[in-house]
Amino acid sequence: MSVRVAINGFGTIGKRIADAISKQNDMILVGVFKNRPNYEAYTAYSKGYPIYTSRERAGEFEKRGIPVKGTLEDLLKSVDVVIDATPSKVGESYREIYGKAGVKMIFQGGEKASVADVSFNAIANYEKAIGARSVRVVSCNTTGLVRIISALSKSLKVESVRAYIVRRAADPKEIGRGPINSVVLDPPKIPSHHAEDVKTVLGDIDIVTMAVAVPTTLMHTHMITFRLGEKVTRQRVIDILMETPRIALVSSEQSGITSTAELVEVARDMGRPRSDIYENVVWEESISVSGNEIHMIQAIHQEAIVVPENIDAVRAITSIEKDWRKSVAKTDYSLGVVKAFAKP
Amino acid sequence: MSVRVAINGFGTIGKRIADAISKQNDMILVGVFKNRPNYEAYTAYSKGYPIYTSRERAGEFEKRGIPVKGTLEDLLKSVDVVIDATPSKVGESYREIYGKAGVKMIFQGGEKASVADVSFNAIANYEKAIGARSVRVVSCNTTGLVRIISALSKSLKVESVRAYIVRRAADPKEIGRGPINSVVLDPPKIPSHHAEDVKTVLGDIDIVTMAVAVPTTLMHTHMITFRLGEKVTRQRVIDILMETPRIALVSSEQSGITSTAELVEVARDMGRPRSDIYENVVWEESISVSGNEIHMIQAIHQEAIVVPENIDAVRAITSIEKDWRKSVAKTDYSLGVVKAFAKP
Repeated sequence: MSVRVAINGFGTIGKRIADAISKQNDMILVGVFKNRPNYEAYTAYSKGYPIYTSRERAGEFEKRGIPVKGTLEDLLKSVDVVIDATPSKVGESYREIYGKAGVKMIFQGGEKASVADVSFNAIANYEKAIGARSVRVVSCNTTGLVRIISALSKSLKVESVRAYIVRRAADPKEIGRGPINSVVLDPPKIPSHHAEDVKTVLGDIDIVTMAVAVPTTLMHTHMITFRLGEKVTRQRVIDILMETPRIALVSSEQSGITSTAELVEVARDMGRPRSDIYENVVWEESISVSGNEIHMIQAIHQEAIVVPENIDAVRAITSIEKDWRKSVAKTDYSLGVVKAFAKP
Repeated sequence: MSVRVAINGFGTIGKRIADAISKQNDMILVGVFKNRPNYEAYTAYSKGYPIYTSRERAGEFEKRGIPVKGTLEDLLKSVDVVIDATPSKVGESYREIYGKAGVKMIFQGGEKASVADVSFNAIANYEKAIGARSVRVVSCNTTGLVRIISALSKSLKVESVRAYIVRRAADPKEIGRGPINSVVLDPPKIPSHHAEDVKTVLGDIDIVTMAVAVPTTLMHTHMITFRLGEKVTRQRVIDILMETPRIALVSSEQSGITSTAELVEVARDMGRPRSDIYENVVWEESISVSGNEIHMIQAIHQEAIVVPENIDAVRAITSIEKDWRKSVAKTDYSLGVVKAFAKP
């Protein structure tokens, strides 16, 4: 039996989740709800995704040659789960409508943690979402941090985490967002909200985060230091990362890659849809151990990193798969997730 | 019978031509020659393209797990045509080697026109390349200009062309090139070299070009004015463009698209490999007629625009297809070239 899924919103995240759902053999994409008849509506239409919009907007869609199947209420009637991929802070306003329709709900990290029963990451706390009424897939930066912290914490005594985040300022398509030529403290206060957000998944760990935004659209970059309550070798750290799903290594020595630009170029060369990178990409040469500290640098593709997590969230919330490793393996196989970039 | 093709260089242009050749049923990619064992060498290897390099470099490739088939001389022995996709001005230095091997040669627009018998564009002068010993596919900006000028000139009395070029400063992967925050006169003199370069294909027309480079990696943009020796309606201009291969329209009113960023986003959504755009994309709303002048704005994807032209150059130079329309149609079908962006 397949889970019937609706997606509300067909922007950066929604369209990627739609494509990912289409690749699962245990899910059916019943339709997408969209407010604006822009070029992304054409994308949905050209891919054959049934399009729903409000009664008021239907005329604008039809005028542009995009047929409309019905309203959000119509769509919600015929699904088990709705994935909310509306812009940050908009999702909460739909909660009551989803609730009335009696469907399970998956929200994104732009919403407050209180929007859902569980803040979710597939590697860290899949079990907590099993059978829940609603989950929130944490944001891109938080997902990147939670994956790497939880990978190390499962095997090592991690006492504290200090993460220094260099955020991309806008997504590639966002022509109205800056800065063009500045580093912006985003936010100026320390810790940034990411530390609290990580705790919504991992509980009360010792973590401090700070973040600046820079003029790039490609990926976030995290410089991280972990302090341990034990000694560890560099090779052991590498082994742990290699054993953890959705963490991939890249070697600057082997490949010459020292930038997010070249990582994206590899994704393009690989034929990844939209050049998407689902993995935390950790530079092998950056992994270093000094005393009881581990240091490393990773890149996080803000447009794609939460896509596999949303797929797993569907399986957890509907209880169709209770073993996180099985869900993650299934998702990763369908998306072509790898363990190394630019390596034979 | 299939034409056997070698590619020298596997960077921005070479790797795209390699993929395009793999999609033709009348060509075989025998191998690629590459100097540096970087991440693009891994790309070639992972796609199963036989890799050739110099005797001195072979060890470096093997050390990184990339098997080498032989030298450039070995490769040239077993092909009919070599496509030179080495960096600008490097191609000429290989000319003698190609000549000695007795293979037909296709160079790129970074070389001087004197490198080859014919400067080539499939829509404008396919016939001149039939059976030639060597051709040069003109550069990205020149290709974009030649296509649109030749489209209009075939149907209208075009008396002069004035083209104002806003160049992308670097390709997405080029992390060493600037500017980051400046408009650069590139070059300060008028006309820029593009005017002369257009004439290598179209002959002695009245054309002036000027160019500035701006901090973007996505696409070039051309603002163009054509002066005619006759009256024309706007609809007639649109009809001509719609009848010409490799020219696609986008409507800002219908799609909301007003930038190169959103064009690239559509290419990503379409599943285009590497988000490539092979078409001249002309904004429908920009097409305007006043008196005896036509004005318009088009975007040109510098990484991809010459790829279909190289495929046609192979057919012309080897005489396996003498009708330009048939070659262009075949190439365009294989690459999924369209006539409109973001339209049902």
